[in-house]
Amino acid sequence: MELNFYMPTKVIMGKDCIRRNESLLKEMGRKAMIVTGASSARSNGSLADLEETLDSAGITYVIFDRVRSNPTTGSVYEGAELAKKQQVDFIIGIGGGSPMDAAKAIALLAVQEVTEDELFAGKYRREALPIILVPTTAGTGSEVTPYSILTNDKAQTKTSISSPVLFPRIAFLDAAYMKELPVITTINTALDALSHAIEGMLSVRATRLTDQISQESIRIISGCLKELIDWKESRKGNELSLTTREKLLYGSMLAGIVISHTGTTAVHSMGYSLTYFKNVDHGRANALILPAFIEFAAKGDAVTVQNILKAMNLDSIAEMDSLFRRLLGDRERLSEEEIAQFADIAIRAKNILNSRIAPTREDLVLLYRQSR
Amino acid sequence: MELNFYMPTKVIMGKDCIRRNESLLKEMGRKAMIVTGASSARSNGSLADLEETLDSAGITYVIFDRVRSNPTTGSVYEGAELAKKQQVDFIIGIGGGSPMDAAKAIALLAVQEVTEDELFAGKYRREALPIILVPTTAGTGSEVTPYSILTNDKAQTKTSISSPVLFPRIAFLDAAYMKELPVITTINTALDALSHAIEGMLSVRATRLTDQISQESIRIISGCLKELIDWKESRKGNELSLTTREKLLYGSMLAGIVISHTGTTAVHSMGYSLTYFKNVDHGRANALILPAFIEFAAKGDAVTVQNILKAMNLDSIAEMDSLFRRLLGDRERLSEEEIAQFADIAIRAKNILNSRIAPTREDLVLLYRQSR
Repeated sequence: MELNFYMPTKVIMGKDCIRRNESLLKEMGRKAMIVTGASSARSNGSLADLEETLDSAGITYVIFDRVRSNPTTGSVYEGAELAKKQQVDFIIGIGGGSPMDAAKAIALLAVQEVTEDELFAGKYRREALPIILVPTTAGTGSEVTPYSILTNDKAQTKTSISSPVLFPRIAFLDAAYMKELPVITTINTALDALSHAIEGMLSVRATRLTDQISQESIRIISGCLKELIDWKESRKGNELSLTTREKLLYGSMLAGIVISHTGTTAVHSMGYSLTYFKNVDHGRANALILPAFIEFAAKGDAVTVQNILKAMNLDSIAEMDSLFRRLLGDRERLSEEEIAQFADIAIRAKNILNSRIAPTREDLVLLYRQSR
Repeated sequence: MELNFYMPTKVIMGKDCIRRNESLLKEMGRKAMIVTGASSARSNGSLADLEETLDSAGITYVIFDRVRSNPTTGSVYEGAELAKKQQVDFIIGIGGGSPMDAAKAIALLAVQEVTEDELFAGKYRREALPIILVPTTAGTGSEVTPYSILTNDKAQTKTSISSPVLFPRIAFLDAAYMKELPVITTINTALDALSHAIEGMLSVRATRLTDQISQESIRIISGCLKELIDWKESRKGNELSLTTREKLLYGSMLAGIVISHTGTTAVHSMGYSLTYFKNVDHGRANALILPAFIEFAAKGDAVTVQNILKAMNLDSIAEMDSLFRRLLGDRERLSEEEIAQFADIAIRAKNILNSRIAPTREDLVLLYRQSR
């Protein structure tokens, strides 16, 4: 049995977990930089909780709130400059995947001079400011991974930077910050997390332990999908219970632990083009591809796919496909030209070969066709 | 959902894992102290692998091999003196629970001056030399816990010291080091690990996540018990396959992750007296108590006990009891005087109140009677 496990982040989940752990913040330093998006951390209460706790702990802070969706290197270099100038001791990222991933890159760039090429090539010292993350969506699992996924304009895709120093010291998980999250964002992020857990099982690096964590994540997220469909189709306001929000947050954190060990697969490689060129939300992009990829993987690894379906409490891939159709609604159109272009880009991505059943370029074309 | 998770040790499991990770050793420093028992690390090949790897990495080392079973504070203070005198950068513990726990205490005592009373009272700085552990039994899970359990002669029991700084940096898990382990040691250590996983589920601090890890641990260890009984009853030489050894090692590591979060329960409190006064092996001591405690716990928490039995693939507590009887053979005699004395000691242990169904002193007396 070959097996590695490493996930050094302290995960603290529960109501008011930030305010109840002021002492842990004090251990991190005297001056913080908060990295967040323009507005959501303000409206969902997370920023206020954090500011109040920092004030009470006597920790000063600056706020860098210029992170947009699918963060560019421009914004992270800007953040890193501010962190250097302000001489902050640690970085706190609050938000969805974008602010969290930006916070990680900023923490790394704040302590060293590296160019964008060096950054994407992994040519940097294993050093970063300490990082705390507060997810306000239940999707990326970035709060427990060593990854920061940035838009790479040169390669026309998203590129992941990965280093053990990017593991956050602490992840504070409070589902209350998600209570205003709209239905579509909730669905897309839940499907992103589900995709992580499923891709983990289809990865060449899957182990017995990651499979156990994957299955727990798949079980708990899948158990929420019916409720998400009802919410979406009823077109009512935010009706999701805090309990369901907590399940999604727990499931996405577990899926983050999984991909910390397994990485993602061809699904992510394929999805990145949908996001880069067609502005499809990241979670939705993965979910559009996933049923076709599962069907493809089943031809070479039926047992794993059966285990995935069992954890989802489904009898067939067809059932999964129809479930996803209801969650996703109308799919994006993809022209043959787009498919050819996207397949060319995806086939060069390193996570293609991370898939136990690795698609060829021709397979990618067929998979994109099935996913439109 | 309230949930904490923290286990920063890098777990590396597989054949030749020490020799394949020389670079990780280099990151730890230039001079090491190896803490081990008198002989087993020499005969099972683990010490040779380590020495060869350290030599190759250019790391010098001293060996402290004066750790005995159920380590006393005397031996750890002696080891700490040597570590100070030799100015070592890190500590490597190889062996069963005793050398591993001694290595942890030595790492802590090597960087500060604390008396024995202060040590047991938790009055020390959160600082220790970096620790690497190499388990050569599959039992305590100490390689992934922040605990060091030492013999406390003043309190006439074992006392656990616990600090996040005692989490090893790295745990190297190579089941090949267990291939000469005798049947009785293999059974006792497996039952110790199984007890950890089960007690985790019966702990007031159990969470949904620790329960998942517990159940995986219980499943995999229980799946080996029939083979252990066959081996014991056939009285043949060492017939256990490497695959089974790996399962036991994996299961005990998982159980260690569980108790890192949940702590142990009344079973351990009760077992310590059997070890302290009657020299019963630690794993055997827990296993002697466990069936009676499960029956006791079932009265207050039938659902959890059902989940435990299900993970063990058993239908009833009676089945568990008869399985344990075959594994343990003749039980130790306990006089009424001994039971009264042991109950007096156990009722003062802090892990009594860590049990979801906490026994009173009268319950402890009944439980000891059932366990003899």
